[in-house]
Amino acid sequence: MQIVVLAGGVGGSRFTAGVRRAYPDATITVVGNTADDITIHGLRVCPDLDTLMYTLGGGGDAERGWGRLDESWRAIEELRAYGAEPTWFGLGDRDLGTHLVRTELLAAGVPLSEVTARLCARWWAHDPGLRLLPMTDDPVETYVDIPDADAPGGRRSVHFQEYWVRLHAGPEALALRQVGIEAARPAPGVLEAVAAADLVLVGPSNPVVSIGPILAVPGVREALRSAPAPVLGFSGILHGAPVLGMAHRLLPTIGVAVDAAAVGRHYGSRRADGVLDTWVVDTADAGSAPALEADGLPTLVRDLVMSSPDATAVFVRSTVDQVLA
Amino acid sequence: MQIVVLAGGVGGSRFTAGVRRAYPDATITVVGNTADDITIHGLRVCPDLDTLMYTLGGGGDAERGWGRLDESWRAIEELRAYGAEPTWFGLGDRDLGTHLVRTELLAAGVPLSEVTARLCARWWAHDPGLRLLPMTDDPVETYVDIPDADAPGGRRSVHFQEYWVRLHAGPEALALRQVGIEAARPAPGVLEAVAAADLVLVGPSNPVVSIGPILAVPGVREALRSAPAPVLGFSGILHGAPVLGMAHRLLPTIGVAVDAAAVGRHYGSRRADGVLDTWVVDTADAGSAPALEADGLPTLVRDLVMSSPDATAVFVRSTVDQVLA
Repeated sequence: MQIVVLAGGVGGSRFTAGVRRAYPDATITVVGNTADDITIHGLRVCPDLDTLMYTLGGGGDAERGWGRLDESWRAIEELRAYGAEPTWFGLGDRDLGTHLVRTELLAAGVPLSEVTARLCARWWAHDPGLRLLPMTDDPVETYVDIPDADAPGGRRSVHFQEYWVRLHAGPEALALRQVGIEAARPAPGVLEAVAAADLVLVGPSNPVVSIGPILAVPGVREALRSAPAPVLGFSGILHGAPVLGMAHRLLPTIGVAVDAAAVGRHYGSRRADGVLDTWVVDTADAGSAPALEADGLPTLVRDLVMSSPDATAVFVRSTVDQVLA
Repeated sequence: MQIVVLAGGVGGSRFTAGVRRAYPDATITVVGNTADDITIHGLRVCPDLDTLMYTLGGGGDAERGWGRLDESWRAIEELRAYGAEPTWFGLGDRDLGTHLVRTELLAAGVPLSEVTARLCARWWAHDPGLRLLPMTDDPVETYVDIPDADAPGGRRSVHFQEYWVRLHAGPEALALRQVGIEAARPAPGVLEAVAAADLVLVGPSNPVVSIGPILAVPGVREALRSAPAPVLGFSGILHGAPVLGMAHRLLPTIGVAVDAAAVGRHYGSRRADGVLDTWVVDTADAGSAPALEADGLPTLVRDLVMSSPDATAVFVRSTVDQVLA
């Protein structure tokens, strides 16, 4: 079986680990978000790709949710001692190894998809059926407009990572821009994987800054809409709150309520102009299913709490079984 | 008193620490060699400047002679795990902080001399009379030709750091090239410091790859020759062997014997076409002094073993006193 998973970082990694648990013999192509990438101190950092790579490779810090297991922070302490801002972005010593290799290869002209494959070769050697593709090889970065009484127009723009990591998504996000997204081309293999898939899964990642950018890469939405395989989407909003992360701070910015049903409608049904065949919501949101069904979006209800890869595997397999039945 | 010191890395640092001990109230401008700089994994590394900076700032590993005190090697272990060669160059986690700051500033167009000043501001804040200038802001790198039976012409060229660190100066050095040296301009302040100095000291650093390149930056040799101050050179060769390092592997390459007298003649007297007013040799080489004197190079004999900053201060002060008397 060929499975494609669209995924962000922390939630996407947990979800993909569950998919692998559910389908140990499948070929799984993970299309990872790169719109929250950042160049920091000259290093190209791809937070979502790294979280996926480390988590599925057994090298991630499961408790923290990102970065390396058994990490240390000596290099960044030095940056702080030099007064070299910013130091709010967590660059661990082991993690730095990844960023150095990636940055050097990118500078040598190796495309991000090839760089990612080389990095994953170390981590995923035990699982050759698992493949990670960046959504695009072209640089995309997300900027967030936040209120600033001192700035012209009363607002200023910060990199998404600054908004997320330094500001903890505190200020209201007045607007979001994915710079570079219009010109981005799907990375080699992305459209082909979707076209060849037996199953396409839209992970319970942030709809605004993770899944949104993947779908916004020109050609990806169309590929999903014309995919021969069923497309299942999983809600990351449970009972009006994100299961992980801070999606509630950004959904209002794009005019979507912090609500499983609203996100399902935002993705939309393939029968209309959306990308989903089936939307999966948590049992806490079961009440929204009839209305979604009535609106033409087939909706399944499951316990979506990803408490373990096994728990995730249960809801993945159960929904897929029902859809393929 | 204004003192200029020409220096390489490990020996130059020990020497400069002794000069500072000898003249605690002097303004000391250290002109550091940058011809063994290297770009490794995208990071610009200036081994001699860093050794000078760390050692004189109290952050260096005195036993190892280079790099940071209390260093760890987690990032480079990651590079090794990724198979990202080379990994023979010692990039410590704390040291990486320095390289990241430097590389980022250089990429932003800040000249190396200004970068160096900013880095030193952290380390030398306790000693505002101490200043470190790179010999040049222009990139210079040293390559060494070594025998290679499989290569065209029976030789191949390796970066000096590869020769020094990976190959431990094992293969015969058939030729040396300082790439970029002809076009290099003295860093801002170098010629001015020499012209304004009350004393110019040529440290007991490697004559071939440390002092040699400094003198080879167009304008520096001429500045020394026309300096109003006395120029004292200190032999790093004691009894036919380098006091530190592996200069004996390279002196033959430039046709100079591994011998204090030969190095003195190589630098030469300002009365002829050299750069020295006085050459200082170790007591072990006292026998060479009369012949050097006879050849027009005033030569002093001292115990030049730099067993401590105090011991170094003793021979520095004693020779300077005699010259200035």
